[in-house]
Amino acid sequence: MMNNSNINHLQGPVCSLPLHHNDQIVIGHGSGGQMTNDLIKNVFYQKFSNPILDMNNDAALIDLLLDNDKKGFLVTAIDAHIVSPLFFSGGDIGRLAICGTVNDVAMLGAKPLYITASFIIEEGFSINALEKIASSMQLACQEANVKIVAGDTKVTEKGKSDGLFISTTGIGWVPASRQIGGQFARPGDAVIISGTLGDHGIAVLEARGDLGFHSAIQSDVAPLNEMIEILLTEVPNTHVLRDPTRGGLATSLVEIAYQSEVTIQIDETSLPIRPTVQTACEMLGFDPLYIGNEGKVIVILPEADVDNALEALRSHPYGKAAVRIGSVVQNSPGRVLLTTPLGSNRILEMLAGEILPRIC
Amino acid sequence: MMNNSNINHLQGPVCSLPLHHNDQIVIGHGSGGQMTNDLIKNVFYQKFSNPILDMNNDAALIDLLLDNDKKGFLVTAIDAHIVSPLFFSGGDIGRLAICGTVNDVAMLGAKPLYITASFIIEEGFSINALEKIASSMQLACQEANVKIVAGDTKVTEKGKSDGLFISTTGIGWVPASRQIGGQFARPGDAVIISGTLGDHGIAVLEARGDLGFHSAIQSDVAPLNEMIEILLTEVPNTHVLRDPTRGGLATSLVEIAYQSEVTIQIDETSLPIRPTVQTACEMLGFDPLYIGNEGKVIVILPEADVDNALEALRSHPYGKAAVRIGSVVQNSPGRVLLTTPLGSNRILEMLAGEILPRIC
Repeated sequence: MMNNSNINHLQGPVCSLPLHHNDQIVIGHGSGGQMTNDLIKNVFYQKFSNPILDMNNDAALIDLLLDNDKKGFLVTAIDAHIVSPLFFSGGDIGRLAICGTVNDVAMLGAKPLYITASFIIEEGFSINALEKIASSMQLACQEANVKIVAGDTKVTEKGKSDGLFISTTGIGWVPASRQIGGQFARPGDAVIISGTLGDHGIAVLEARGDLGFHSAIQSDVAPLNEMIEILLTEVPNTHVLRDPTRGGLATSLVEIAYQSEVTIQIDETSLPIRPTVQTACEMLGFDPLYIGNEGKVIVILPEADVDNALEALRSHPYGKAAVRIGSVVQNSPGRVLLTTPLGSNRILEMLAGEILPRIC
Repeated sequence: MMNNSNINHLQGPVCSLPLHHNDQIVIGHGSGGQMTNDLIKNVFYQKFSNPILDMNNDAALIDLLLDNDKKGFLVTAIDAHIVSPLFFSGGDIGRLAICGTVNDVAMLGAKPLYITASFIIEEGFSINALEKIASSMQLACQEANVKIVAGDTKVTEKGKSDGLFISTTGIGWVPASRQIGGQFARPGDAVIISGTLGDHGIAVLEARGDLGFHSAIQSDVAPLNEMIEILLTEVPNTHVLRDPTRGGLATSLVEIAYQSEVTIQIDETSLPIRPTVQTACEMLGFDPLYIGNEGKVIVILPEADVDNALEALRSHPYGKAAVRIGSVVQNSPGRVLLTTPLGSNRILEMLAGEILPRIC
C-alpha cells in the first residue's frame, strides 16, 4: 500500500521539501502523497528514527527473539480513520478501520491476529450509528479472523471533532522464512493488481453527494489477508505486496520503485477500471490511478510465477478481476512509466497534494 | 488506572444503565466514569467480547505460545489523547500520549517496548507546534526506553477537529511468572499511592484559564515503568498496579474493589494532596479523589511487603511522596470506604459523569 502516510514509509530517496516553522497544516498534508511524505519526514521521522521504523514498510517488524525453532517477527501497523461521511455504499468507517489495518499487516506476509481500537466521538453523535459501526467492525473482524484486544473511548465537545474518528493498531506474526516488502522488486518481475481501481474513492465521493449523478459504485473495502495467504501458499517467492490506498496505484508504485531502486513499467490498456469509475473521473477531472482503493493489492513477483499467482488470486472472491498490469525493468531507478495505447511513455509521479480529502 | 474507558475494563459486576438507540453522545460518555463504562459495555463490549478482551485489565495479554523456556505474554494497550489545551504546565499532548500508553502496559508488570502512534491534525495547525510535540514524544520515549515503530497521519478540514489528537498503542512483554492485575487484591493487603493526587487535572484546568487564579501546579505526567520495575524487583509478590487517570483515585479503587470482590478502606488523613490542589478543588467544588493523574500508581500488596515497597518507590524520583493510604478488608465486596478524620465512613462511588472533560 502506498501509505507514505505511515511513518514506516517516511524514509527512502523520495525528495522532500523543507517545512518552515511558521507553516500551517493544510489539507494536502493528509493526502498520503508528497506533502504527507514531506510532513512526516520533516516532523516525525527526524525525531522517531529507529531500526524498526527505518525498515520503511507498511507495518513494523518486531523480532521477539524468543525462540530458535519458531523464528519469526511480530508485525504491527496503525491507521487513523477520518472518512467522511461515515457510511457509504459498500462499507462504513468501522469496516474501513478493521480492513485498513488488517491489510497493512498482511502486506508483509504476516497473519493479522489482534487489533486495538480507539474512538474519538463528538458530543451529540448518535448511539445508534455507533452501534451500527461497532457491528460492522465485528463482522469485519470475523471475516479477517482477528480479535480486538484493547480499546479506548474519548469524547470531545460538539463542534470539536466530526462525528467519529477511529484509530486501529494491528498486530500479527510472520515466520522468518517470508521475505516480502517494498524493497524486494527486481528487474524481470511482473506487476499484478488484484482488481478494479478507484472504486472506494468514487463510492465515498458519491456518498458525499459530490458526484453530481448517481452511480452504482460500491467501495471495495475488504480484508485481504485470506486471499494473500492463498497467494503466498501458491507463490512463496512473492517479492512485494502493497495495497494502493490514499494516493492510489500510481503513488504506491512510485514508492515501490524508490524503495527497490527500479523502474516499473505499466501498460495503460491493461488497467482494470469500471466504466462508471472512468466516467466519474473524466467528469470530475480526476485520474483513476490516483484514487484510493481499500480492497486491492499490488503483487510483484518473478515472471515465472505470474500464471500461478493469477490463478490463486482469482480463486478468491476479492481477486476475481486480478490481472497483470506491467513489469519491473532496469533503467533509471525510482521511476514509474505508463505506456499509453499509442505506445508513448508517461512518467507517473507521486500524488502531490490532496485531491480527495477524508476518503479513509 | 481507572481507565474503564479502556475496553478491557468493560466487564465485571459494575452495574450498567441500558442505552437507548436514539441517545446521543454527551460529554459524560468520555469521562472515564460510569457513563463511559455504560457506553463501552453496551456498545463495544457486546460486540467485541473475546477471551483476551475479557481479561478485563488495562492492557491486553497475548500468549504467543512460542516457547516453553521463555514463557510470557505480549501486552498491548491503546489510548486516544484529546487533551485541551495541547500544552500545559509540566507537559503536553505528546508526553501524555507516550506516558499514558507506557503506563497502561506497565500496569500488568510488563516491560513496554514499542509504540504505534496516529495523528489526526486540523488544517491550519502550526507545524512548529507539531514539531514541539514530536520532540516531547521523543524525549518521553527515551525516558521510558520505548520505540515508536509505526505511525499514521491524517488531516481534517479546519473546524472538523481541534488542533491535534494522538492515539498511541503500546506493546510490551511480561514473563509468565508475573501475575499482576485488578483481580488480585486480597483481604489483608495494603494500599499504597506513589505520590500526590490531582496535579494533572488541576494543571490542565489552569492552562485553560479556568482556575481563576495562578497556581504553581505542574502536571505529574510521567512514564512509570522504570519505577515499577524497581518495585517489582523488590516485591515480586505485588498484587495490583493501577494508574488513577480519568476518574481519579476513587474511580480506580472502585474498579479494583469490583474486580477483586473486596472492600477497600482508605484513610482520608493519609491522602497526599498538595495544598494548592486542595485549595483549587475547594474553590471549584471538585473532590481531588476524582481528579485525573498521569504519573501516579496505586499499588496493592501483602501487608508484610509495605515497608520494602515504600522504600523501593521512594528510591525513584516519581515515587518520593509514596505513602500507604489504606487496606483491603473483607466485608461487602465491591465497595470503597473513606474513613474521615472524625472516624466515620463515607462510601466512594465511581465518577458518574464528567467533571473535567479533555484532560487526557
